[in-house]
Amino acid sequence: MDTDRLLRELTDFLRIPSVSTSASHNADCRAAAEWVAGELRRLGCREVQFLASGTHPVVWGVGPEVPGAPTLLVYGHYDVQPPEPLDEWTTPPFEPTVRDGKLFARGAADDKGQVFCLLKAIEGRGGRPPVNFRFLIEGEEEYGSRVLFELLRREPERTRADAVLIADMAYIAPRWPAVYTTLRGLCYAEISVRTAKSDLHSGEFGGAAPNAHEELARLLGRLKTPDGKVHVPGLYASVKRPSKVELATWKRLPFREGEFLKHRVQAKALTGLKAYSVLERLWALPTFEIHGITGGFTGDGAKTVIPAEATAKVSLRLVPDQKLKTVERQLVAAVRRFAPRHVQASVTFLHGADPATVKVTHRAFQLLDQAFREVVGRGTVPARAGGSIPVVPALGKGGAPVILTGIGLPDDRLHAPNEKLDLKQLWDGIRVFGRFYELLGSMGVG
Amino acid sequence: MDTDRLLRELTDFLRIPSVSTSASHNADCRAAAEWVAGELRRLGCREVQFLASGTHPVVWGVGPEVPGAPTLLVYGHYDVQPPEPLDEWTTPPFEPTVRDGKLFARGAADDKGQVFCLLKAIEGRGGRPPVNFRFLIEGEEEYGSRVLFELLRREPERTRADAVLIADMAYIAPRWPAVYTTLRGLCYAEISVRTAKSDLHSGEFGGAAPNAHEELARLLGRLKTPDGKVHVPGLYASVKRPSKVELATWKRLPFREGEFLKHRVQAKALTGLKAYSVLERLWALPTFEIHGITGGFTGDGAKTVIPAEATAKVSLRLVPDQKLKTVERQLVAAVRRFAPRHVQASVTFLHGADPATVKVTHRAFQLLDQAFREVVGRGTVPARAGGSIPVVPALGKGGAPVILTGIGLPDDRLHAPNEKLDLKQLWDGIRVFGRFYELLGSMGVG
Repeated sequence: MDTDRLLRELTDFLRIPSVSTSASHNADCRAAAEWVAGELRRLGCREVQFLASGTHPVVWGVGPEVPGAPTLLVYGHYDVQPPEPLDEWTTPPFEPTVRDGKLFARGAADDKGQVFCLLKAIEGRGGRPPVNFRFLIEGEEEYGSRVLFELLRREPERTRADAVLIADMAYIAPRWPAVYTTLRGLCYAEISVRTAKSDLHSGEFGGAAPNAHEELARLLGRLKTPDGKVHVPGLYASVKRPSKVELATWKRLPFREGEFLKHRVQAKALTGLKAYSVLERLWALPTFEIHGITGGFTGDGAKTVIPAEATAKVSLRLVPDQKLKTVERQLVAAVRRFAPRHVQASVTFLHGADPATVKVTHRAFQLLDQAFREVVGRGTVPARAGGSIPVVPALGKGGAPVILTGIGLPDDRLHAPNEKLDLKQLWDGIRVFGRFYELLGSMGVG
Repeated sequence: MDTDRLLRELTDFLRIPSVSTSASHNADCRAAAEWVAGELRRLGCREVQFLASGTHPVVWGVGPEVPGAPTLLVYGHYDVQPPEPLDEWTTPPFEPTVRDGKLFARGAADDKGQVFCLLKAIEGRGGRPPVNFRFLIEGEEEYGSRVLFELLRREPERTRADAVLIADMAYIAPRWPAVYTTLRGLCYAEISVRTAKSDLHSGEFGGAAPNAHEELARLLGRLKTPDGKVHVPGLYASVKRPSKVELATWKRLPFREGEFLKHRVQAKALTGLKAYSVLERLWALPTFEIHGITGGFTGDGAKTVIPAEATAKVSLRLVPDQKLKTVERQLVAAVRRFAPRHVQASVTFLHGADPATVKVTHRAFQLLDQAFREVVGRGTVPARAGGSIPVVPALGKGGAPVILTGIGLPDDRLHAPNEKLDLKQLWDGIRVFGRFYELLGSMGVG
């Protein structure tokens, strides 16, 4: 494997700041889409198209036809999360840098590095594997996949395949590859409160005027109890507890609470509902998180203003069998109920996704298990995931099994400063998926 | 009075964005100081100096000597509050605009317009009034007056005068000029919480990791009860209730709660401790306000991050007989007490001031009362103020009476968008202070 060349090529891809959540990066997202399209052409795709071609086109590719061979739909995304806070990166997020065998860059693991892995695995084995490849590489995964959703609603035939492969995940622990049986859903919203027509001087009005930040703080404090229960009435009603068998499986996973706290969370204590195991809190219970708060004065120095308006970016993660639409209604009702009468409170939904459940019994999973076993010495363990890939349910609607897997490691710091991908994981991954394509092509999935 | 020329000159002064709380405006603050120095030279000052000459020099001026005449120290400030939020200004904050007899600009009332008024009143009466003028016009009033404090500690002789005049206040109501007997103090701080080493992905960690914004919201919620009591243990211990006489006086002031709510606060309800009158809440009780919150993700769009750090800019207003140093200790203790053990909470103090009390029995107050009576038809009513002018106690240390008055109106929107000064108030004010200087010069204060 010419790892020098591969590293150069991946570096080019990672250099593009394709942040989909900010309109100022629209041209960069387009450039990342062009990069993907170029790769697909190099792989001999007979069809490479930009679908739903707006600012964040979905890159669609159809590989060379192999009559009688199974069809594999490869999904991934070229967009990345915003890199802020910039000052916490050791090296800049869009200047990929190798340190100690790890490639540091925004998107290294989520998901450009993994898209790269799936594509390079095709060219990696000399001859092309006898598989009918389809590619759907989108640019809005970090922003709700709206364009792709709409596209798949209009053109469901795009998902017609024998299997769907998504490498946007991580090993459950070093040397423990995994396939994922559920993803949490997401309900991303802005909660705004307004208390007056405009900002007021705290000297003139302090003591008698409402303060938007104070009301928002109190409201947010009510939406989650100190012990970690999300206080949105009705929220837990449709939450389905994992089966005893599944819970027992989790106990055998290489997960150590102390190590998780010390090396990954890096905090003084874990929080959340103590009646449940940490894995259950991460995988099988809904959450409520505050991401940031705007309003008032946040510049350098001091301004003695009573803010008239304050907004919190928040999100809930959803678990089987919660429905996004229901949770949205419940959140609106909770905000209305908890806001005092003199406060004008509103909720705006930015994007969301239902939780996803995947059965891992299909023959394709056995082939992937075999590929991992041969290359890295251990097969895949079934696990759940706390994150969300909004489009997963839509990709499975054609009936094909959706293989959720990946080459990341738990300490890749997705969405955070110093995101990285271990290069050994990448080189192993290229071999694993190369072998998987071979197995799939020669043995089929029927 | 050549109001066209005066308006042009004031406009030039207001155009300078001399925001003292932001280092990016240091050159503008210097320019505003130069503007003041130019005016003092034009008034024939035999000494014009930049004292403590850093980024925000104190402009010191000594007027022409008039042997045997009383000495008046005029204090004011050329710095202004930040203009944000910019989009709520009808016309830009540093492009002074007259609409409907009102001059709209940041600093129009606080305090450039009033400094302008005091200076122009000297040249306004043809011959110069027989007063030995001293001027102390500073550039850090909105940022704690640290430079001036230090200067007056080193050189207390600067405040040696028969009276100190400060016009940084407003009429108590239209046609009701006032002198102020107390100013609230200020304790401006940043409360920070840290919950982890760095930001985390809410998909991976949500449900088991602490969230800095959530902890901060809960902490802020505890620092003030929903009914408006500041929940900082010990805070009210040294608060001195106004006398029965004073409370009775306030009842006769032209203050209507409904009008205050509707036209000035412009909210759905007043808040605060309902057991006290609104004026008592504004003038004689401490407050706690949140000004803004940073940390996490506040950009456009959505980022699913669990913030590791969050900071709130807050301030308390202090009333007689509270002490800044005591309140600082009480706030630190409250934050420590209310933060859960897994949260690292800290308090940084940005600036502050003790509350100020002024006796209004000195003969100089009678002369000002007479000047107002002659020019606008009503004398000055004694009132309190909710705002803070940090340097007031230091200005009075030499024993001179400190006259706190002003030509603003209650609806001037200080520190807020669309700050304005009514031009009639300015023209009246120039006449009032011109007459006051005359009375002071001819009758003395002995």
